[in-house]
Amino acid sequence: MKLADVYYKLQKDINIIEKELEVTVQADHVTLSEASTQLLKAGGKRIRPVFVLLAGKFGDYDIHSLKNIAVPLELIHMASLVHDDVIDDAETRRGKRTVKAQWDNRVAMYTGDYIFARALEISLYFENPKIHQILSYAMMEMCIGEVEQIRDQYNWNQNFRNYLRRIKRKTALLIAVSCELGAIAANAPLHIQKRLYYFGYFVGMSFQITDDVLDFIGTQKQLGKPAGSDLLQGNVTLPALYAMDKDPEIKRLIMETLDDPYVDKLDIRNVLDEIKNSGGIEYSLQISDMYLNKAFRCLEELPDIDAKKYLYEIASYIGKRKF
Amino acid sequence: MKLADVYYKLQKDINIIEKELEVTVQADHVTLSEASTQLLKAGGKRIRPVFVLLAGKFGDYDIHSLKNIAVPLELIHMASLVHDDVIDDAETRRGKRTVKAQWDNRVAMYTGDYIFARALEISLYFENPKIHQILSYAMMEMCIGEVEQIRDQYNWNQNFRNYLRRIKRKTALLIAVSCELGAIAANAPLHIQKRLYYFGYFVGMSFQITDDVLDFIGTQKQLGKPAGSDLLQGNVTLPALYAMDKDPEIKRLIMETLDDPYVDKLDIRNVLDEIKNSGGIEYSLQISDMYLNKAFRCLEELPDIDAKKYLYEIASYIGKRKF
Repeated sequence: MKLADVYYKLQKDINIIEKELEVTVQADHVTLSEASTQLLKAGGKRIRPVFVLLAGKFGDYDIHSLKNIAVPLELIHMASLVHDDVIDDAETRRGKRTVKAQWDNRVAMYTGDYIFARALEISLYFENPKIHQILSYAMMEMCIGEVEQIRDQYNWNQNFRNYLRRIKRKTALLIAVSCELGAIAANAPLHIQKRLYYFGYFVGMSFQITDDVLDFIGTQKQLGKPAGSDLLQGNVTLPALYAMDKDPEIKRLIMETLDDPYVDKLDIRNVLDEIKNSGGIEYSLQISDMYLNKAFRCLEELPDIDAKKYLYEIASYIGKRKF
Repeated sequence: MKLADVYYKLQKDINIIEKELEVTVQADHVTLSEASTQLLKAGGKRIRPVFVLLAGKFGDYDIHSLKNIAVPLELIHMASLVHDDVIDDAETRRGKRTVKAQWDNRVAMYTGDYIFARALEISLYFENPKIHQILSYAMMEMCIGEVEQIRDQYNWNQNFRNYLRRIKRKTALLIAVSCELGAIAANAPLHIQKRLYYFGYFVGMSFQITDDVLDFIGTQKQLGKPAGSDLLQGNVTLPALYAMDKDPEIKRLIMETLDDPYVDKLDIRNVLDEIKNSGGIEYSLQISDMYLNKAFRCLEELPDIDAKKYLYEIASYIGKRKF
């Protein structure tokens, strides 16, 4: 059983969702439609829709009901990406902003708003208020996570708990509710809804920690941006937290280097090396594995259907992936 | 009957809404709560909640039901203001962006997202799907209006129809649905819901046109920004459209002046004078009055209750206001 096989098995229904996403982001407005469609075509693994579908297998699987969960979840994810881009764009071009760049940013912000609104509109197809509540709760927590990330930037005294809470809000929660809502939409029993929620939560935590590790050890080519970008933007992730916690000297070095507005590439590389040598990468991967194992244990308590194997496969891929 | 009297009559229920707004924007997060509360304290006339309350008088008036309409509508309005600020901030400080300014912008964007999500969450208290649909539709149209405004910036060949459609989406629609939803939440008859929708729409159009006129004729002190700011940002409003349509020479002058990146204050003042001398102000005020009269005619068809007088009073104020 490989990841590709899981996608192959679900291909027909993923295509239905893909089609629905395309139709949904069409607006009575050229720029908005173009921006949204471009975003959609940029792709992604559609991890959240896949979780919705697999969770739905634990109840009365009905693609036409499940797609109305999968589409808003993927749209909320997309909208948060657009809004992150608004920020990233502003940063990379700092001091050199062109009218074009600004136009893009503004359109990007409103495109994100538009997609958020569409996501919530579609979820209204469901009469079950629990579904609306969970969706808008997830969206709010994501916003709080984003603001927390900004607040915690360049804060060298945050602790592991700050980090874990932040990635829960930013990443894990939306994956958790993807699994939960798939089960709810398929009328799966309550205890299965809860199991699937925790499965998604643990997978999401493992996913984000792995992501944060890759930012340290990946090459520029693999990452599409220089290694250490997170730290360079003041985002303190688990490997750096571990290194700072272990050795006050490394903490001092990180603070001095990153707080220096004229920091050069060599200094950054030095900091990254210190973090890598501290054992922060190995530690983080252990924590990621711990979450992954918790996810696996959630699966054990679920009925033995094919979807269970698929969830296992996807979780393994997400937790262990190299890029 | 004066405007202050209308607010006085509704004071108790406006206070309930005000309190609810305060409670609603409290987040389990200091920065978000602070930003939202600050925004709230900045005030505003709470025009949308007032319309909700007055519309509710045409049915079974229940403040606890109506507040759940008034709060999300005011929040959607607030969120759109925050997002507009993100843009404005970026523009005013072009080329001179500070880390502080950037932090504010990012927090502002996510604060707007958070408020949008809260708005939609609260509207879920209603079981009536019509209410959710109208709210998310209004939010989407507002986004489309914003993007249209960006697209149409520095477009000197747009026509009156473009302008009217844009201000409908940007402003008039949210006022229209404030009136409509107040009536729906109070179970007023369908024909009254529709009348109130059109009343709000016409008032909203009059309101925005008046606003656009004030941007030309106000003093810096009255406006809180230099006169002609709209045009300077490439936003083509009715007085400019009229002037360009009437006289190709003025159009040429406007294009040459505004498309020049090194334009100076004197050139701008010259353009503003030409537009004022063209009769564009008087024409725009006539159109605003036309909408206002249409709004009044909608009122005529409503039952003779006190709320009708109040709506008349507010509409008159909005359409005729000097600042």
